[in-house]
Amino acid sequence: MAELDPFAGLAAVLGAAAVHVDPHRQARKGVPEVVYAAGKSPGLTLAAVQALLERQPSGRVLVSRASAEVIDVLRAELEPAGATVLVAPYGGTVLATRQDASPPRETGGVVAMLTAGASDAPAADEAAWVAREMGCRIVRADDVGVAGLHRLEAPLRMLRENGADVVIVVAGMDGALPSVVSGVVDVPVIGLPTSVGYGLGGGGVAALLSMLQTCAPGLVVVNIDNGVGAGATAALIANRVAAARKA
Amino acid sequence: MAELDPFAGLAAVLGAAAVHVDPHRQARKGVPEVVYAAGKSPGLTLAAVQALLERQPSGRVLVSRASAEVIDVLRAELEPAGATVLVAPYGGTVLATRQDASPPRETGGVVAMLTAGASDAPAADEAAWVAREMGCRIVRADDVGVAGLHRLEAPLRMLRENGADVVIVVAGMDGALPSVVSGVVDVPVIGLPTSVGYGLGGGGVAALLSMLQTCAPGLVVVNIDNGVGAGATAALIANRVAAARKA
Amino acid sequence: MAELDPFAGLAAVLGAAAVHVDPHRQARKGVPEVVYAAGKSPGLTLAAVQALLERQPSGRVLVSRASAEVIDVLRAELEPAGATVLVAPYGGTVLATRQDASPPRETGGVVAMLTAGASDAPAADEAAWVAREMGCRIVRADDVGVAGLHRLEAPLRMLRENGADVVIVVAGMDGALPSVVSGVVDVPVIGLPTSVGYGLGGGGVAALLSMLQTCAPGLVVVNIDNGVGAGATAALIANRVAAARKA
Amino acid sequence: MAELDPFAGLAAVLGAAAVHVDPHRQARKGVPEVVYAAGKSPGLTLAAVQALLERQPSGRVLVSRASAEVIDVLRAELEPAGATVLVAPYGGTVLATRQDASPPRETGGVVAMLTAGASDAPAADEAAWVAREMGCRIVRADDVGVAGLHRLEAPLRMLRENGADVVIVVAGMDGALPSVVSGVVDVPVIGLPTSVGYGLGGGGVAALLSMLQTCAPGLVVVNIDNGVGAGATAALIANRVAAARKA
Amino acid sequence: MAELDPFAGLAAVLGAAAVHVDPHRQARKGVPEVVYAAGKSPGLTLAAVQALLERQPSGRVLVSRASAEVIDVLRAELEPAGATVLVAPYGGTVLATRQDASPPRETGGVVAMLTAGASDAPAADEAAWVAREMGCRIVRADDVGVAGLHRLEAPLRMLRENGADVVIVVAGMDGALPSVVSGVVDVPVIGLPTSVGYGLGGGGVAALLSMLQTCAPGLVVVNIDNGVGAGATAALIANRVAAARKA
Amino acid sequence: MAELDPFAGLAAVLGAAAVHVDPHRQARKGVPEVVYAAGKSPGLTLAAVQALLERQPSGRVLVSRASAEVIDVLRAELEPAGATVLVAPYGGTVLATRQDASPPRETGGVVAMLTAGASDAPAADEAAWVAREMGCRIVRADDVGVAGLHRLEAPLRMLRENGADVVIVVAGMDGALPSVVSGVVDVPVIGLPTSVGYGLGGGGVAALLSMLQTCAPGLVVVNIDNGVGAGATAALIANRVAAARKA
Amino acid sequence: MAELDPFAGLAAVLGAAAVHVDPHRQARKGVPEVVYAAGKSPGLTLAAVQALLERQPSGRVLVSRASAEVIDVLRAELEPAGATVLVAPYGGTVLATRQDASPPRETGGVVAMLTAGASDAPAADEAAWVAREMGCRIVRADDVGVAGLHRLEAPLRMLRENGADVVIVVAGMDGALPSVVSGVVDVPVIGLPTSVGYGLGGGGVAALLSMLQTCAPGLVVVNIDNGVGAGATAALIANRVAAARKA
Amino acid sequence: MAELDPFAGLAAVLGAAAVHVDPHRQARKGVPEVVYAAGKSPGLTLAAVQALLERQPSGRVLVSRASAEVIDVLRAELEPAGATVLVAPYGGTVLATRQDASPPRETGGVVAMLTAGASDAPAADEAAWVAREMGCRIVRADDVGVAGLHRLEAPLRMLRENGADVVIVVAGMDGALPSVVSGVVDVPVIGLPTSVGYGLGGGGVAALLSMLQTCAPGLVVVNIDNGVGAGATAALIANRVAAARKA
Repeated sequence: MAELDPFAGLAAVLGAAAVHVDPHRQARKGVPEVVYAAGKSPGLTLAAVQALLERQPSGRVLVSRASAEVIDVLRAELEPAGATVLVAPYGGTVLATRQDASPPRETGGVVAMLTAGASDAPAADEAAWVAREMGCRIVRADDVGVAGLHRLEAPLRMLRENGADVVIVVAGMDGALPSVVSGVVDVPVIGLPTSVGYGLGGGGVAALLSMLQTCAPGLVVVNIDNGVGAGATAALIANRVAAARKA
Repeated sequence: MAELDPFAGLAAVLGAAAVHVDPHRQARKGVPEVVYAAGKSPGLTLAAVQALLERQPSGRVLVSRASAEVIDVLRAELEPAGATVLVAPYGGTVLATRQDASPPRETGGVVAMLTAGASDAPAADEAAWVAREMGCRIVRADDVGVAGLHRLEAPLRMLRENGADVVIVVAGMDGALPSVVSGVVDVPVIGLPTSVGYGLGGGGVAALLSMLQTCAPGLVVVNIDNGVGAGATAALIANRVAAARKA
Repeated sequence: MAELDPFAGLAAVLGAAAVHVDPHRQARKGVPEVVYAAGKSPGLTLAAVQALLERQPSGRVLVSRASAEVIDVLRAELEPAGATVLVAPYGGTVLATRQDASPPRETGGVVAMLTAGASDAPAADEAAWVAREMGCRIVRADDVGVAGLHRLEAPLRMLRENGADVVIVVAGMDGALPSVVSGVVDVPVIGLPTSVGYGLGGGGVAALLSMLQTCAPGLVVVNIDNGVGAGATAALIANRVAAARKA
Repeated sequence: MAELDPFAGLAAVLGAAAVHVDPHRQARKGVPEVVYAAGKSPGLTLAAVQALLERQPSGRVLVSRASAEVIDVLRAELEPAGATVLVAPYGGTVLATRQDASPPRETGGVVAMLTAGASDAPAADEAAWVAREMGCRIVRADDVGVAGLHRLEAPLRMLRENGADVVIVVAGMDGALPSVVSGVVDVPVIGLPTSVGYGLGGGGVAALLSMLQTCAPGLVVVNIDNGVGAGATAALIANRVAAARKA
Repeated sequence: MAELDPFAGLAAVLGAAAVHVDPHRQARKGVPEVVYAAGKSPGLTLAAVQALLERQPSGRVLVSRASAEVIDVLRAELEPAGATVLVAPYGGTVLATRQDASPPRETGGVVAMLTAGASDAPAADEAAWVAREMGCRIVRADDVGVAGLHRLEAPLRMLRENGADVVIVVAGMDGALPSVVSGVVDVPVIGLPTSVGYGLGGGGVAALLSMLQTCAPGLVVVNIDNGVGAGATAALIANRVAAARKA
Repeated sequence: MAELDPFAGLAAVLGAAAVHVDPHRQARKGVPEVVYAAGKSPGLTLAAVQALLERQPSGRVLVSRASAEVIDVLRAELEPAGATVLVAPYGGTVLATRQDASPPRETGGVVAMLTAGASDAPAADEAAWVAREMGCRIVRADDVGVAGLHRLEAPLRMLRENGADVVIVVAGMDGALPSVVSGVVDVPVIGLPTSVGYGLGGGGVAALLSMLQTCAPGLVVVNIDNGVGAGATAALIANRVAAARKA
Repeated sequence: MAELDPFAGLAAVLGAAAVHVDPHRQARKGVPEVVYAAGKSPGLTLAAVQALLERQPSGRVLVSRASAEVIDVLRAELEPAGATVLVAPYGGTVLATRQDASPPRETGGVVAMLTAGASDAPAADEAAWVAREMGCRIVRADDVGVAGLHRLEAPLRMLRENGADVVIVVAGMDGALPSVVSGVVDVPVIGLPTSVGYGLGGGGVAALLSMLQTCAPGLVVVNIDNGVGAGATAALIANRVAAARKA
Repeated sequence: MAELDPFAGLAAVLGAAAVHVDPHRQARKGVPEVVYAAGKSPGLTLAAVQALLERQPSGRVLVSRASAEVIDVLRAELEPAGATVLVAPYGGTVLATRQDASPPRETGGVVAMLTAGASDAPAADEAAWVAREMGCRIVRADDVGVAGLHRLEAPLRMLRENGADVVIVVAGMDGALPSVVSGVVDVPVIGLPTSVGYGLGGGGVAALLSMLQTCAPGLVVVNIDNGVGAGATAALIANRVAAARKA
């Protein structure tokens, strides 16, 4: 903590900020540091990614909520230096890897994911990529819906057949799917509400509230669109189970 | 509209209020006047019931949200005069009938009702009694739940077998059942959220919002605990269908 | 449900998503699948429309909340292939039809619509187009207002003369019109609040709440701007009445 | 402002509090001091009433939101001393007058009042009693409703025939009546929402929001149940008009 | 009310919409029709202005919340045809006048306005222009603030010296000024909250709530930024007083 | 689903309701049916407990949110019949056991619990008793607080030494403790907000929102005071880990 | 942290809870531990007071939000043992002192307090008693109001004359007084909103929001009715100033 | 207050507005006038800055929430005239100084600042620049976080070593850091919530509510992102302490 010179320039502050990146969190906590790009300028996001890319033993850095502009900056600055920049199908989530990075060590933990509709995909991707970085196997069924329960049978069967240790159910609008799923499975369920829907209770509010009010004990939730939180917790659960299986 | 003497006593005002009872609404609108007891003193409720009981051709008067105290007053004052006072199983809804009252004329309309849990019964009763007064046949399955979808099959089959013209689905907490039902039936569904549940989104708020956000087109809603509204609209629908069947 | 490769590209995911389109909903439920464009990229919307256009027996696909950009993409991609792309007067709602599509089979159901002001038109159009696709006849009066009750007489007379089976009343701001209308008609009324108005209670919130608090039993509501929900339910009601009339 | 001895007893504080009663407000501002009883103990309310009764030239003191317990205390303490204690028909509002009090000087201002339902009476009484104390003539029609517009014609005609300078429209639940009235009269309208109604938007919230969102310019509002505010402003308007008429 | 052809083009609908313009409202209600531009396309706004400009006896049309784009369209289309287009200092409010329009007839009513800060000017202008069109004289003091009460003395003195019949107090953020003013003047006060301020209670919410909770009876409010409502009601009050003065 | 006779008495309905008790849920889902007493009359609660006590193989029934009155009824009716009624230290949670009931089978799963303050105990007890019924070992530290971090060290050390598989952190008011704990442990954390606190954000709202907004990935939440949900999910997690350890 | 036996009785738990009382907080933090009675049973409150009374060097214990029942228990149990139980004029705040307790050491810090109305007294007392326990001198003016600014002059003069180091301004309803005061004094101001007021923004919400939105920099706030927080912070400020004065 | 000519042009109004700039506030109140740019056009902001720059004795003017466009205008217009325009590292806050301006007189007051994350920097800068202009020394530690308490030790030590008179703790999302800090320091703490975070409680709402609900007495708050308020109050506190130290 230095005495602030409020007239100091941008560079000094950026340098100072970069110092605070926490490359050891993965070791201590089991969850990798994810760079949250939404509240940051492209330059600040790039600086944080570069710092982590350098210091993190895995050589792998996840970025969430990256805009198209941020993605362009990351590609333009990191790829010429030999890094790889992978972007999730609907954007938002990005994985940058150093040239010498190895894939995440597979833990044997199994995270199942069900999404209610096509618009839930970005939040689901965010969760999936985080859990993948934490070494889990992901099994996933999209567009399961609640308006037509016949669509639910196949995913539930596959979930059981794959030995899922935990299920993330992703839904916006009425948020009914997680309650329905939690009523019929015997593993913990994490509800991930998404900002899908308009009008009163829109933007994911009704979905989140409905999940909080669930009749089905065994359902816990994260905040709207918080794929990182859902993925990280699911992986912590699955990895602890997997570690016990191996021991 | 007379010039108000703000120092006039209670009796004059009660007399004036009684004048405004609208005994012809049932003829004009097809929905009987229901005395809403929650915001009124027992005396005022009694006065309104007496006025309607006298002037309404059917000789039948429904009261909603009657407290135990109101019910006692109604019984004490109306039964000695030959009227009958019927109370719904969990209280709240009351039917007062004149000695010469005849049962409601059966229209042939069929209203189906599904409730999610035992605590939804009072709101469901309110809706059922209103629809019954409007001449509909009621078929109803209680405690259907969404946390255990196997419980849904039998009610849905019976709903179809009884030729339901419309379905009222009553649910508190997560409010998921109406969306689930609306996804699989081909008649209009009215969601009736109930004030069941605590915490954020409690008191029926999450249930109402979830129904408003439904993925299943074909679902309309009334306000939390508004059994009168759900029952009256369902009966208007069923009665219009029934009238067309007879014509 | 396949094991997710989080590094799979966009094409694979789009393919998978297209599989989930539900072309049989119209047969099972009586309501056509409507492509909701607001939460989707133009490409994803186009893919969904193409899939439904191909597989849906009617050869007709409705799209709601299409932006100008989405409309341009639909026109550019579908019209050269022989399809027709019709856009509602104020945009938003789009109807794509295959070359061999026939108009919707007329059911004989009659849906009346009243709108309070000029800004309510887009939501009203959405409802009208859905009900039309479900075979109903639409009678509609615009800009009826509540601030000037003399404007209400003509529409109410026409509503009766046309034998409306159900009325959709569309209103933003104070949301008073549906209560006024529901107090004087003897058919079910569906309130469709619109996101018109600013300040506290703006964006349709006051309109929706006022409808939920209606003094007039016989009024049910859908969420703000949910024209699809209002139109689909109205048509389910009208069609059931019409079927009874024919039988 | 004295240094506080936090261990001083109740009597000293009550004495100090009584000093702050503002008997000259009526002269300065044209609105009498009204004792708001809801947040006070019966003893504190009594002390305030006694202080005002003594010092106020008119010898008249209004109390709002008095509970039955407060009314009992006022009667027991004031009537033996020769004062008169008048209570509004549904309670809440109380007028205490000194033996030598004269009735309020009549200004010639005319305040019209319309209430939507029987439950709106207490708030309406509060407004009427305040305007009466400020010297206005009150013309009032109760239970006008919006669900049945035919009931509106007579009140509107009488309002014009009595030369109302301003109209207070009192309504809970959907709060639609003030907008309807404001659309057809050419005097200012004050909407007084009441805490009638339950569920979402209940307790007067929907009524207030709907009035704030009115389509009818010429409508202003006060807070839910704030009869004092509505009555005082209406009387200020009517009295200024009346003063101009006399000049 | 014609049967809707949902495939009718834009022109037909615009023609129909124009029919609903209500040029006689000023005569009936005393408040001119104001074209609310925020929810309309420039073309629709232009059509409404043109229709009113033609049919309104005064030859004067106010437009509220006009964007820069709308203003450009109005100027480009109306000025070549001989009309005049006046824009308020901070935009938003526009006055279009026919070549043969005469200024509003002066009623003698006096509306005073106080604004708390510079950002409150657009809402204040909207109110001032409406009251001016209704024939009132406007006296106004800007940037009076509540954080520095010494700034309040001069405006209050001028308000009295000009014989203001009513005061509009315009304030965002804490919304304290209207309560302070209402405590010291003996004419009715209309609080006009503005959407100034950020964070919790921002966008005018705290200002509106604080005004609704005022300790000073004699204060009524309109919704956030509703200059039209504040100006129209103030002018209705002032004009009624002025008419009495003249009689 | 039988045709409803709205005039059927209470007994019949109670009998019907009792039919819906789901004694097989524990086998299917791994979570026992808990009787939620808050929305039910003592008689209805008793009937549900008796039905489950009889049919549930374990002979053990948990009741949540039992009032003192409910507890008295349960004791008076069940103990003479040989059952045992155990009540949690601060009331609310009750365990009724049949004479032949055996303790829950120990799974080896370890659930740790930390509470922030003394007022959080009832919600914590609810969670603990549910997890205990599901066979888990509970380790718990009360009154850990966040205002004084030195109090956190000992609990965290014990949590690690006991090999906790999951941690429930119980907190009201600021809800800060779960974020602090989740930042330093490597097992999943379930935040259980409690309805402690008053003013804005009171009743547990700030606590819940703060947990939803946590900076610490690995934290999931349940609704305010939902001890059943937190305990059931924690036990599902711990039991799956324990089962893997045994295999 | 011991393994929980969920069947342990009340005594054991109470014993454990008492262990967590933090008698050293005053030394470490400069603010005494205050027993918050609202969420606790009388017995639990008594136990906490007894524990602190014994171990706290000062022999003085404050209790906030004590109900009449709690006060009775404290008096009945503590006074026979020689302790003194002092209750604030409007109840709520209680000071228990051991026989050998000495008054708080005077620091020389000066805390000024202004309250807007008589109903704000309980929250103000809570703040005053806390600051007094922390050794400050309190100067206070009650019922200052904002509706009548002439009442503000004397308190402001006395505030300056007494050399106040900080001002607590206590207000409910519109919450305007703190902004007005903060605009004219040159010491820090702490706004203490109170739960006075009804309707929208009632219960102190408008007061708090208005203070948060203040135009007057130099105003900070605590939550509604949080007299302990306001008093403790004010005393921390005044005591730091006083310590500097002495040094 | 002149009679408004609503047709007066922009220039006249701007002139009038400029008159209201209050260059003497710093002398009277100890806090400099800060130009709040968010609600103003670049031209209006420039005019206000120019007026203050000219008349303020210090020759220094702070601007908050300046957009990039505003900054460009200020630079283009002020720098050619010899003034200096300094911009905070992340923009938003700007300091314009006249050529003859001297640095702020150092008071000796010490304000410590802790920020939770990198996104909190802009609000922190705003507070720091205001306190600096008021003559305080700023000591600051960024990115302290609550998810990893080990990061808190060094800042707390430095805070004590620098003799901080007051601490501003800046945090978004869960807002937990201020409560944690306030629990362990013995100087007053000002919580400055920032609009960081999404979903329910996002935009700083959870952070603010959590701070309002703090368990740690001694914490007061300002509104979300209100750096000016936090900085000004902190400096008022520190300067009063420093003045006492000097005396």
